[in-house]
Amino acid sequence: MPDSPLRVIPLGGLGEIGQNMMVFEYEDDIVVVDAGVLFAEGDMPGVDFAIPDITYLIENKDKIRAILITHGHEDHIGALPYVLKELDVPVYASRLTHGLISVKLRERGALKDARLNVVEPYAPFKVGKFRVEFFRVCHSIPDAMGIAITTPLGIVVHTGDFKIDHTPADGHATDFASLAQITADGVLLLCSDSTYAEVKGYTESEKIVGEALDSAIREAKGRVMVATFASLISRVQHVIDAAIKYDRKVTVVGRSMSNNVNMALNMGYLTAPSGTIVAMKDARQLPHNKVIIMATGSQGEPTSALVRISNGQHQDVEVVPGDTVIISASPIPGNELVVAKTIDNLFRKGANVLYSRIATVHVHGHASQEELKMMLSLVNPQYLVPVHGEHRHLISHAKLGQSMGIPEENTFVLDDGDVLELTAKEGHVVDKVQAGHIFVDGRYLLDMHSNIISERRRLAKDGVVVVSVVLSESTGKAFSPPEVVSSGFAELDESQDLFERTSKMVTTNLEEGGAGGLELEELKAKVTDSISRFLFKETRRRPTVLTIIDQV
Amino acid sequence: MPDSPLRVIPLGGLGEIGQNMMVFEYEDDIVVVDAGVLFAEGDMPGVDFAIPDITYLIENKDKIRAILITHGHEDHIGALPYVLKELDVPVYASRLTHGLISVKLRERGALKDARLNVVEPYAPFKVGKFRVEFFRVCHSIPDAMGIAITTPLGIVVHTGDFKIDHTPADGHATDFASLAQITADGVLLLCSDSTYAEVKGYTESEKIVGEALDSAIREAKGRVMVATFASLISRVQHVIDAAIKYDRKVTVVGRSMSNNVNMALNMGYLTAPSGTIVAMKDARQLPHNKVIIMATGSQGEPTSALVRISNGQHQDVEVVPGDTVIISASPIPGNELVVAKTIDNLFRKGANVLYSRIATVHVHGHASQEELKMMLSLVNPQYLVPVHGEHRHLISHAKLGQSMGIPEENTFVLDDGDVLELTAKEGHVVDKVQAGHIFVDGRYLLDMHSNIISERRRLAKDGVVVVSVVLSESTGKAFSPPEVVSSGFAELDESQDLFERTSKMVTTNLEEGGAGGLELEELKAKVTDSISRFLFKETRRRPTVLTIIDQV
Repeated sequence: MPDSPLRVIPLGGLGEIGQNMMVFEYEDDIVVVDAGVLFAEGDMPGVDFAIPDITYLIENKDKIRAILITHGHEDHIGALPYVLKELDVPVYASRLTHGLISVKLRERGALKDARLNVVEPYAPFKVGKFRVEFFRVCHSIPDAMGIAITTPLGIVVHTGDFKIDHTPADGHATDFASLAQITADGVLLLCSDSTYAEVKGYTESEKIVGEALDSAIREAKGRVMVATFASLISRVQHVIDAAIKYDRKVTVVGRSMSNNVNMALNMGYLTAPSGTIVAMKDARQLPHNKVIIMATGSQGEPTSALVRISNGQHQDVEVVPGDTVIISASPIPGNELVVAKTIDNLFRKGANVLYSRIATVHVHGHASQEELKMMLSLVNPQYLVPVHGEHRHLISHAKLGQSMGIPEENTFVLDDGDVLELTAKEGHVVDKVQAGHIFVDGRYLLDMHSNIISERRRLAKDGVVVVSVVLSESTGKAFSPPEVVSSGFAELDESQDLFERTSKMVTTNLEEGGAGGLELEELKAKVTDSISRFLFKETRRRPTVLTIIDQV
Repeated sequence: MPDSPLRVIPLGGLGEIGQNMMVFEYEDDIVVVDAGVLFAEGDMPGVDFAIPDITYLIENKDKIRAILITHGHEDHIGALPYVLKELDVPVYASRLTHGLISVKLRERGALKDARLNVVEPYAPFKVGKFRVEFFRVCHSIPDAMGIAITTPLGIVVHTGDFKIDHTPADGHATDFASLAQITADGVLLLCSDSTYAEVKGYTESEKIVGEALDSAIREAKGRVMVATFASLISRVQHVIDAAIKYDRKVTVVGRSMSNNVNMALNMGYLTAPSGTIVAMKDARQLPHNKVIIMATGSQGEPTSALVRISNGQHQDVEVVPGDTVIISASPIPGNELVVAKTIDNLFRKGANVLYSRIATVHVHGHASQEELKMMLSLVNPQYLVPVHGEHRHLISHAKLGQSMGIPEENTFVLDDGDVLELTAKEGHVVDKVQAGHIFVDGRYLLDMHSNIISERRRLAKDGVVVVSVVLSESTGKAFSPPEVVSSGFAELDESQDLFERTSKMVTTNLEEGGAGGLELEELKAKVTDSISRFLFKETRRRPTVLTIIDQV
């Protein structure tokens, strides 16, 4: 048996939904699985999304042999543009996933430098000391793969996101027979999707969504709009199928969805007879009952087509009574309120809105408990590391594993950055490396401990008050009463008197020798502090106070 | 038949969950049903909660005969302290509701001026031209009432929040027989709870929660903590019952829950043998397996006991492995993320956490579709106004009413402020009065169109940049390079160089005669604008820019 341990390090995807990234390290070889983004949460003002902190990978860049991608959703590929800027590493993905990655990198002008490779399932290849084999799983996107990584210590099976669907949209059911062959000689470690590990029973098949979309489109009297994720290719196929059946044309709104649909059509992942998909300008010439509009915006994203349509701010589409709007997605946690507002706005405009709470127009793509048990039973691993999910999901999954006979000491609920070392005999968390979120704010990256975020939270809560003092360098006295301005702090009628008193208070403080002998920075801090205390006493608010002192 | 119409005006509770308030007006008489708060949403920075805009009531204060309260939840009584400050009107409520209102008003020193009256169910009384009769309904609080208001035009039935529970915690099932008698002569208008009008079937009984709590407490090895709403008195009774059965003591943490529990014990709505409820200091002396801690914090409120416990910041309670924590509530929309974080933190500290997704430790208190149909069928109203719920819930409920035979023109999906006039023959929305939210921010009330909110949103997104210029009154030139400071805008290493260039840009602009001939305000606006454009070009961010110009 080899002496070296296998090191397993989550850099993302634990403790939070999204932002998946797992590191497998054996001696001088590293493979990385997935490179996703985490969608911004409500308490992260100004942040677009988060990517994993890859300091550990940058420090070990010479060891990295490959990034393996399980499937083409944002929370698995979204960080690639950032990661590939730092790491010149080959990326391996299935055909459709490769297509989606290419679209993403091309949009950022980063495609030509990337080393992208297409992987066929069940076609093993070597990267460093590892032998890698992709196997088919079902998820809410075609060409989703699990990955078997044969290491000198044994086989690691990483499921990616999966569910067990006997009637999936793309016809490729989870291939248990092949997985059984791959894992026939025993499995060291199973890393398995935990997103729905809390939920009993089985997840429903994508087939019922196809049926619900079909019946909604059949019964629609006017125009139909379908909102979903840009990457939910199988939904687009359902819609195209219904369009053909009920003699409608499909038009696609929004850049990311158009790009993905075109790519998927070119690659054969979508099939539509010529003339089925038409441009918006052509769709506008058709009677409403001949049109289906596909758009993004199922998460209530403020700049998306659907939200602009719901607000009456879209240049091409205006909702009219008789329209049917289908939201074919569930809100990602944190988006519940904005999605609900979008639905309400569409109802107010007279649309008939179908959404997951009242119609089966969406099912998710993750295994529930019985499916997870089936995976555990088939793979029968020595060790279990639940991945993909918040901490409580990982714990549910670990308990499920224990109920299936995996000893408690062989199940590991990890945090990002934990270094798990596995040998043939035992596993231990031996170290913690830097890990966590890097926040993407437009073109800037913010460290997760950045003051910017806490400053913004404080600004959001109580606003800002600025006091400007001009001191005479010769006399040390203020030339005029200090000026006070604010934003987000108080209504004008309330602040006018308050700011006059603030100004007087500062003047009095300065005149009472407050300025004497103090350095400028000390004086500033003292004035800021006295203003903060004064405003809190008067208003019970704690605005950010910025003091500027000029000496002339 | 009388000539005057009945006017029905929602001032809150439509289009949003919570903040319920309905106005019924006949000639010179007004009765108001409920006065609730709306819990703050994620996009309302610094706002604690919202209360209804009662401008219409203030303008018509001489007409108001009574405020009738259906039950004691915050979204039905929370605005009373604000409303009673403006309106000197008698309030009528059932006994427990009266108790909860008294606790609330006493906490704010407003009890002695309030005119509170206890109402027994099925004991009609007159207010102005109206005859009012409370009738029992089931909801997740004891003493919940529907209200029948006999007007000169006919009977209005307002259900309040309700579900149909044959095994409720307090033993009072929804009393259909009495309601049938009250409504025997026909009903003009039904205003009915729409919160769960989207959901098919029946809502589960509170009984299954009692069973789940019982079994969780029976099986707990160590300490048990139960988090719920301060007003969910029936849950407290379930916990007390289990405590007695399994030989534990109950201690209550948090002011609002303690006050409510004491009041409910005194009034007989909670029964506990002496010695069952103990003080925290006594509970700390007991072995962990003899203790149950009841606390608020089921919504992840940052200052609540449970959240402080989960963060390790509570003075009396530290979670240890072996503890069981039961979250006996569902997240209110918008609170999903903070509740999930609280659960994750508790798991990380080693607690076994039970919550609604994995155990039946909570059921809600609102009727599902079959129950709503039963109410419709029993009351058989001429007109239907769905109340309590967001717009899409009202629409679902209206459709349900239509499916039960109420003509479409007799079902009204209203917005806050709509004035619905009903006669014996027909109903129309004839007017719109001022209505909406007033935001409560600490001790201040903000108008819903207040700039403060939008200013805070902008501050939250991109921070603030302040530029201070000191001009010489004689030469019109700046004394020194303008100072630039910021908060929440950019990291220091990035902003240093940027701010130097900003300062130079302003100096250059001023020297190029920018200041010449302009009034101070114009100059300020010009400088602000040039800085905004400069910073956007450089950073793609749009911070709030505040410019201060001193002339000395």
